[in-house]
Amino acid sequence: MDLHRLTRELHVKNSTKIVMYVGDGLGGLPQQPGGRTELETAKTPNLDALAKAGVLGSSIPVLPGISPGSGPGHLGLFGYDPLQYMIGRGALEATGIGFELKEGDVAIRANFCSLDAKGNISDRRAGRIPTEESAPLAIKLRAVKIPGVEVFVEPVKEHRFVVVLRGAGLHGSVQDTDPQITGVPPLDPVASDSQSKKTAEVAKEFVRQARELLKSETKANGLTLRGFSGKPALPSYEEVYGLKAAAIAVYPMYKGLARLVGMDILGKAQTIAEQMTVLEEHWQKYDFFFIHYKYTDSTGEDGNFDSKVKRIEDFDAAVSRITALKPDVLIVTGDHSTPSMLASHSWHPVPTLLSAKFCRTDGCERFGESECLRGGLGQFEAKHLMTLALANAQRLGKFGA
Amino acid sequence: MDLHRLTRELHVKNSTKIVMYVGDGLGGLPQQPGGRTELETAKTPNLDALAKAGVLGSSIPVLPGISPGSGPGHLGLFGYDPLQYMIGRGALEATGIGFELKEGDVAIRANFCSLDAKGNISDRRAGRIPTEESAPLAIKLRAVKIPGVEVFVEPVKEHRFVVVLRGAGLHGSVQDTDPQITGVPPLDPVASDSQSKKTAEVAKEFVRQARELLKSETKANGLTLRGFSGKPALPSYEEVYGLKAAAIAVYPMYKGLARLVGMDILGKAQTIAEQMTVLEEHWQKYDFFFIHYKYTDSTGEDGNFDSKVKRIEDFDAAVSRITALKPDVLIVTGDHSTPSMLASHSWHPVPTLLSAKFCRTDGCERFGESECLRGGLGQFEAKHLMTLALANAQRLGKFGA
Repeated sequence: MDLHRLTRELHVKNSTKIVMYVGDGLGGLPQQPGGRTELETAKTPNLDALAKAGVLGSSIPVLPGISPGSGPGHLGLFGYDPLQYMIGRGALEATGIGFELKEGDVAIRANFCSLDAKGNISDRRAGRIPTEESAPLAIKLRAVKIPGVEVFVEPVKEHRFVVVLRGAGLHGSVQDTDPQITGVPPLDPVASDSQSKKTAEVAKEFVRQARELLKSETKANGLTLRGFSGKPALPSYEEVYGLKAAAIAVYPMYKGLARLVGMDILGKAQTIAEQMTVLEEHWQKYDFFFIHYKYTDSTGEDGNFDSKVKRIEDFDAAVSRITALKPDVLIVTGDHSTPSMLASHSWHPVPTLLSAKFCRTDGCERFGESECLRGGLGQFEAKHLMTLALANAQRLGKFGA
Repeated sequence: MDLHRLTRELHVKNSTKIVMYVGDGLGGLPQQPGGRTELETAKTPNLDALAKAGVLGSSIPVLPGISPGSGPGHLGLFGYDPLQYMIGRGALEATGIGFELKEGDVAIRANFCSLDAKGNISDRRAGRIPTEESAPLAIKLRAVKIPGVEVFVEPVKEHRFVVVLRGAGLHGSVQDTDPQITGVPPLDPVASDSQSKKTAEVAKEFVRQARELLKSETKANGLTLRGFSGKPALPSYEEVYGLKAAAIAVYPMYKGLARLVGMDILGKAQTIAEQMTVLEEHWQKYDFFFIHYKYTDSTGEDGNFDSKVKRIEDFDAAVSRITALKPDVLIVTGDHSTPSMLASHSWHPVPTLLSAKFCRTDGCERFGESECLRGGLGQFEAKHLMTLALANAQRLGKFGA
């Protein structure tokens, strides 16, 4: 069932404003059974006031028990079924560093590796080469020239970099060249379908020239290629919701994901306060704003309960600048849970809050995981959130007569 | 959406142990509105302790309002969408007595019946002939010989037995021969599709020879055939979850269902205490244990509220032997509800409990239908339970990057 079949048909335009305020990895776990989660421990007077006036629920990012990465997590929030729309690994990596993929591009995650005298891999991550050393090497690989194909090489972090191939007749179905073990040489790129044969040949030539350029290196004298993928085909927010949408994010990954669904990327904010300033400056120009806050996830990933609590309090403090703008619909949620107890993304439902004039309030008093269990939105798959946003913004007509 | 697409791709191996403890027909109804169900009436200190530390929910076996049989009920618990995977009645009965069906076999549920002098059915169950009398008769029917077809006849219980036909070109679409009323003769086997014509002919010949063999019997001098079906094609637990799984059940049906998904059948326990001994003996050898307890269902089917309460207390008492083994994930649930007020399987959601280190507890204090409504798992389709089990056992990787 494609939800967009309904929203494409039913959406109407008006002057309402919707804000989706996302605390990455917002959901958590208590430090002991029966205790309080990070969100429940944090002092969140602004979110609690919204919770009291609004409606709460627990969103399931993909399906019960499934822990999503950032790609599927955000696709769900944006209303794109994460099981229907897949973003290839290479495309996600390119997106994550702010590379704007074009139709027909093939994006590849590349790793520097160490090769021994026989050409066998001795270290799959080139001795975890630091970024200061690896970035210049990635840039050096821009010297590779392949007739008829434009080659982009972008540093990422440590042993990782991105290669994008642009040219006619390229397709992304090529197998990884990382053998996943040491003591053997990297694999040759092999096409999985006939359409992708040219890509495999181009990749092979890229590797040949790259090894020539790297031959005098001690650590990073080889490379492997993974996650070959084209630009994902996602319809835009304008098409499926009739929304002129913008994203205000600090990190390239979330800007990139927003760009894939046709959002404009606003400003160059580096802090949540700067993000709010960008929001205020552009308030009149858009119908929908996606505001992404990273640190609820990164502190969770670090396994730092207290630090996550503190970051949630910062996340809460910024809310007043959103409410001051009087959005018609304000949604506060996360793309998944990142409990500091697990120090990783998890499957737990995500506390979610929707505040709007015609939402049906539910008697909940605070914003937290336990309270959200009793909320009026119940437990729901995240992909339904945008439909609820549109409805509460009175931007959806009646289905059927 | 095939859930196994995700679990096949994402499952990882580790040394965690998962136990699924199933009280057949566990859910119930109060004797008057506002009263307590069987489970809520029973004293269940062990389950209540688990409920307090774990997370509760209400599982919907198939879809809201649908009362499942044992087959779909268990398929759902095992994570096989019961609307996608169907098990024919004959295959289920053969499975239930431990007959290992092969690809291409056709299994049939057969009943002994009593025929009068005109060949009309006078008793559809042969006077509820006791097993001691009927089993030798079923074995006698092994004398039936049909060229090109191997015929297996297996006693079941009382008037019931199983026939399995094995040979080239057999298909299972043949209509039941039980007319469901007395005073008329059994029907002839009729193929529902052209592929199954040979099966219908073979079945007719089987009946002819069987009646010859039974002609001197007083009670069981006839037979009817029902539920013609082939072996269901179910992928194994090892394939879809990466789990080495075992079943500890008393009744053949549940052993058979477990065998269909590739579980090993352990021991010959006849009581719940013996089942727990089998569990203890095999604890090191498996990743996943399915323990089936029948009597919560049979007492419900008998319409005996007090007896179901007592059986639930026995079910509870055995829990301590499971928890003593310290499983990483312990799930307690049922395959459906069997309220003694209805004396039958019902559609009501099934109280479900999941206890694991990283489950997010929900403030529920006791294990019962009303409390489960407030639980952190919400209401969910039973097919998602295995994904939750794997997630809580940290046996599922992240979906997407």
